[in-house]
Parts: sequence; structure tokens; C-alpha cells
Amino acid sequence: MDAVTRIERALNASMDLAASPGSPPRLAEAMRYAVFPRGARIRPRLCLAVAGACGDDQPGLTDAAAASIELLHCASLIHDDLPCFDDAATRRGKPSVHRAFSEPLAVLAGDAMIVLAFQIMARAAAGAPQRLGGLILTIGDSVGMPHGIVAGQGWESEPRCDLAQYQQQKTGSLFAAATAAGAAASGANPDEWRRLGDRLGEAYQVADDIRDAVSDEEELGKPIGQDAAHHRPNAVALFGLDGAIDRLRALAADAVGAIPSCPGAADLRAVILLETQRLLPRSLAARAA
Amino acid sequence: MDAVTRIERALNASMDLAASPGSPPRLAEAMRYAVFPRGARIRPRLCLAVAGACGDDQPGLTDAAAASIELLHCASLIHDDLPCFDDAATRRGKPSVHRAFSEPLAVLAGDAMIVLAFQIMARAAAGAPQRLGGLILTIGDSVGMPHGIVAGQGWESEPRCDLAQYQQQKTGSLFAAATAAGAAASGANPDEWRRLGDRLGEAYQVADDIRDAVSDEEELGKPIGQDAAHHRPNAVALFGLDGAIDRLRALAADAVGAIPSCPGAADLRAVILLETQRLLPRSLAARAA
Repeated sequence: MDAVTRIERALNASMDLAASPGSPPRLAEAMRYAVFPRGARIRPRLCLAVAGACGDDQPGLTDAAAASIELLHCASLIHDDLPCFDDAATRRGKPSVHRAFSEPLAVLAGDAMIVLAFQIMARAAAGAPQRLGGLILTIGDSVGMPHGIVAGQGWESEPRCDLAQYQQQKTGSLFAAATAAGAAASGANPDEWRRLGDRLGEAYQVADDIRDAVSDEEELGKPIGQDAAHHRPNAVALFGLDGAIDRLRALAADAVGAIPSCPGAADLRAVILLETQRLLPRSLAARAA
Repeated sequence: MDAVTRIERALNASMDLAASPGSPPRLAEAMRYAVFPRGARIRPRLCLAVAGACGDDQPGLTDAAAASIELLHCASLIHDDLPCFDDAATRRGKPSVHRAFSEPLAVLAGDAMIVLAFQIMARAAAGAPQRLGGLILTIGDSVGMPHGIVAGQGWESEPRCDLAQYQQQKTGSLFAAATAAGAAASGANPDEWRRLGDRLGEAYQVADDIRDAVSDEEELGKPIGQDAAHHRPNAVALFGLDGAIDRLRALAADAVGAIPSCPGAADLRAVILLETQRLLPRSLAARAA
């Protein structure tokens, strides 16, 4: 089964669990709306790619870890779009969750998806219970305090903020968790796999800053110019557009170099190269070539 | 060490983890503000009481489970107080988190505390990794979808809602988790302990409805009349005040009868009786005697 099929199947199973009889139907619908149709699924694909390189001897646990990471990513988008943060009207080319449903349902959908991420890992760990603790710490630490996504968002409420630390927490942490969790689910040492995810996360954040600055709204599927409008720290403001593109290329090269030696390293290198080539908007692809 | 000391120590340790160097200080401060000074801590005290009756052979795991339950309870209060839900200005006699800090920090503090609940259980499970999965399911299912607190709050956005199901999910589920988790952390069968928590949770919800209807704001420490103002289903509207008080007494008796036979049953019975006597507001204590 290919990676996308595995990921969509695991996400569907988690949404079916949430929508079990006796659950509030509109909240279940809001959760499904936030997860489908699929976005790039870059984080769960990374998780599966690393698990594959590490043997993937517990595929059910790998799938749960990958789905968990995507649920946490989607939950952070829902809350980030709320009126008290970005007040974004659109996401992935359709109305944001609070616009399509309501603000209460958007808050609750995010909350429920955070919890669901841990519920599905615990359910999938019966075959390898000794791996559950490490997996939950790998993923939980990348989302919560002191250094996960929520911490990164928290820096937006501080008077001063270090750009590298902010981006590492807000974006890099879940990428590092994606590669480390792929290893942990397969019984490999997660720490050897963090640098790969870390570099990819930084590359992704720089690419996101570039897209926010230069894309048109139709291509991006969400409002543009949000960083400038909200005075958020970003790589284009800091390095200029050409400097940001240079930085993106250096990070992508560093990521490929950070793959530990393992039987599946060659295949994984090809996947990583493909992922990093997809990061730039079409209008800049020639300039970066 | 007494229960309150254990609980406060475990909650303090979790807040210290959240406030580690490199974390955003105002968010860490908002989390601590939401957790201290202590509320009644009724759920974690129940968890510890049941663990004690079951042998409590992994006290570190018990403490983490109890703190986890309180963190999840506090997180639900923070989000419930937000402008898009109750828009509550006060909580436990002081400004609500979004009033004292900001709406973004209130959303993030709730999110971070949900994640922290799972981080601390995974950290504490090293001595009994085979208990972690069951503990996370017990607690996670009581908070998320399809039947936990978030599901209960979700029913407030539905056109129709069954009162018993709504209250069971919004309040009863975390009480049932408190007793079941105390058992699970001690290696006992959590399912035998759910009915005790379930009945206590229903009693607590009925008592909360009564307090919301008849207390003064100073005694309650938060705005009164919220159920009527938000047209929320509640026991006083459904049964009348005397009927609600009768129901509370029947539920308390049922809870005491639901304690499974175990070596610590007599001590536990005394704790439960004390807890249920504390539920009514002072102005009604004579009426219910």
C-alpha cells in the first residue's frame, strides 16, 4: 500500500472513531472538514518514509503516529485561523473552520483533534506497548510546552522573540517529530533522526514565508501577506527575497546530508529531494533552479 | 504524604516543565495562573483515593494521572470561559485567563495543558510501561471525542440535546476517568471503578446547576445564572429546585453503593461521603439535611 493510501486510511479511521454514535454530529463534521480533502500531508509522509527506512515492523503504530502528527498539524491550523489570531477567512482554498461552522466549534474541533492524536496512538500500541511512552513524548513535546508548536505560537504574544527559536518551535518541532516518530514507531533511535526533520522544518518555514510574501491568494489557498499584516517575524523581512531563497536551498541540502546511514537511505534521499523541490511557489521555481 | 500535597507537588512539577528555559514566559505564566491557587481538586483527590484503595504500587504514575486529570479540567474551564462560549469575566474569584492575559494566550494555555496531560503521563510510566496505554485511553476518551468533555461541550452547538448524555459527557466522563485512572495506575481493572465516578460526576453536575441557580456570585467565585442566560440544559430547569436536591441525594447514595469490595473500601466510603456533603451551597445545606 502506498504512503498516501495508508495516511488517508488512518485519518479516516480516526474520524470514524470521533463520529461514533452518541457524539455531537456537527463537531464531528467540523473535524472531518478540517482534515479532508487532504493537504500536502508532508509531515505524515515524512514519518512513513523514515519508518520505511527503519524496517517499519509495526505498521499499525507507524500509521497511527503519522495520522496523529497530521491531526495535530490540522488542529494548530484551526486555532491559528481563529479571530483572536490570524482571523483567516480561508484555508486550503475553502472557508476556515470557524467561518464554515462557528467559533465554538472551531475551538472544540482543535481541542478534540489534539486529544484524538493521543487516543489513536494508545489504541495502536497493543502490539508494542514498550514503544508507546517514547512515541508520545516525541510527538507531545513537539506540540506542547516548553518547545513545541504551542510554545512557538506563544512567542507571538511576547514583546521580544528570537526568529530561529520561534520558527523552530512553531514549525520545525513537528517536522523533527515526524522523522523521530517514524524511527520510534519502528524501534529505532529517534534522536538520530531529528536533524533531518529539523532542517526540513526550517526549509518549509522559509518557503512558507516566501509564499506568503510573493504568491497570489488563489495559488496559496489562504490569505497572503499575513506575516507583514500581523508584524510577525519572517525570513523575507529578515534576509530579503533572494537571501531567503538561498537559505531555503542550503537547508534542503543540509537535510539530505542529515539522513543517517541505514538500508533504506537511497530511497529516502530521493523522497526528501522531491519534497524539497515542491516547496517553492511556481512563480519562483525558475529563479531557484 | 497527604493527597493534597501529592497533587500540588505533581501540578507544580508539570508547570515547572512547561516553564523550562526557552519557553515563552507569558504563556507559561498564564498556565500557572489557571492552575493555582488550587480549586477543590475533587477529581485528582478521587483518583488518589481509588488508587489508595487499590494498593497504589506506582505512586509516581498515580500522581501523574491525578495531575493530568486536573490539567484537563482546568484547560476545559479556560476554553469554556472564552468570549465565544460563556464570555466569563471571573473564575475561582479572580479574572478569567483571557481577561487576565489575552484571548490568544487563553486558547494556547488550554491547548498546552491538554498536551501536557499526556506528556506527564508518558514521563511517569517508565516503571510500568504496560499500564500507559490503558491509562491514556481511560483519560483521553474522557476528554475527547466521541464521548468526553469536548463532545459534551459540542452538544451546546446542536439544535437538540439529551440532558443526561450532555451532562455525562461534559462532567461525568472526567469523574469516571478519575476513579478508573486511579485503578488503572495501580494495575487494577478500571472498568469496575467507572460507576462510582459516573455517579459522583452526575451528582457534581446537579450540584453545579443548583449553585448556578441559587448562589450569590461571591460565594461561587464566578458569574451566576449562566445556564439560564445561555439557555443551556440544566437540572433545576428540568426538575425544579427541590427535585434537583432530591436527585443529588439519590446520586450520592448510589455512588457510595458503587464502591467495589476491596481492602480499602471503608476508608474510601468515608472520603466519598465527605466529598458529596461538600457539594451543596451553604444556603441550601439545611434544606438538604
